[in-house]
Amino acid sequence: MKLLEDRIRKDGIVRPGGVLKVDSFINHQMDIHLFREMAREWKRLFAAKPINKVLTIEASGIGIAAIVAAELDVPVVFAKKAMSINLDYDNYETRIQSFTHKKIYNVIVSKKFLGPDDHLLIVDDFLANGCALVGLLDLADRAGATVEGIGIAIEKGFQPGGEVIRARGIQLESLAIVDAMDDETGAITFRPQPHQS
Amino acid sequence: MKLLEDRIRKDGIVRPGGVLKVDSFINHQMDIHLFREMAREWKRLFAAKPINKVLTIEASGIGIAAIVAAELDVPVVFAKKAMSINLDYDNYETRIQSFTHKKIYNVIVSKKFLGPDDHLLIVDDFLANGCALVGLLDLADRAGATVEGIGIAIEKGFQPGGEVIRARGIQLESLAIVDAMDDETGAITFRPQPHQS
Repeated sequence: MKLLEDRIRKDGIVRPGGVLKVDSFINHQMDIHLFREMAREWKRLFAAKPINKVLTIEASGIGIAAIVAAELDVPVVFAKKAMSINLDYDNYETRIQSFTHKKIYNVIVSKKFLGPDDHLLIVDDFLANGCALVGLLDLADRAGATVEGIGIAIEKGFQPGGEVIRARGIQLESLAIVDAMDDETGAITFRPQPHQS
Repeated sequence: MKLLEDRIRKDGIVRPGGVLKVDSFINHQMDIHLFREMAREWKRLFAAKPINKVLTIEASGIGIAAIVAAELDVPVVFAKKAMSINLDYDNYETRIQSFTHKKIYNVIVSKKFLGPDDHLLIVDDFLANGCALVGLLDLADRAGATVEGIGIAIEKGFQPGGEVIRARGIQLESLAIVDAMDDETGAITFRPQPHQS
């Protein structure tokens, strides 16, 4: 999606170690105009799919998911990290390793909010190693829900997550796929995606 | 706001110890239609204020904040719990005690995204003891930002947070104020708010 690629070129910051900071418009400050355009693009790309719920994981996926859900006119469920004493114990649970935070989370979704009638669009801000996505797919699988597709804002094409997901035959639409970044020049190479706007 | 009070009566679950579960429509599954109506009500209630940014805290405030920001046509910043290695160290920082999770969080906002030009609407799902809000007010204060108002979905009127905030002279609009709950009958008493819809 050219709009997002242009914004990443303009406001993204490349750091050593394959880090791309987009906290001025995606995952700390959130540009809701941009999110709405992203939501419209996913709506177009997944138009053939009978999506009736958006699934994401806290925290930075929630803002994008809310705007996508507004566009698709469906509810959102967000998977929660760790256990809150306010939650029921009647949950689907999985474990997700976070490379960013260097720890393993228990991630849960209440059995009340995910089941065989759900046709999910899974949404998140980043796809790198794919650990979070594989965890969400595991939760959907335990619930008997159908994953109609996955919408990612930024995929790091030089990490294995995208390949892992596509090998499972799931329609994955990453609106920007970064194939290479140079932390000295700041140059970013995006993978061509002619079917996207 | 009658729409929210009615929904809490219908789908909220009263638990012993002053716990009100609204996870089927607010803070685990999110009803985006309801959020949009709440956003429109806050837009009306804060119409006189020159709001140019929404501030919230991860995680369950983010969905509401995104829809409010879409309605007000401004960006969102969400304060983050703990430290991510992807963040700069150039942050405003405060400490917030969570009664729900029984721990103390460091909460941060990047200095890039909060400053003297910001006129904030602070948004969150719950107000009980007020610890999270006092932390957000502290971050706004450190940044020199102006807090134009606070929008809360559900205030527990039998806990001290609302009084603490109102005593500071801030316009606080809680769309439902629960003055009493009975965990045996499930009965909920809301505080009358004739200026709300």
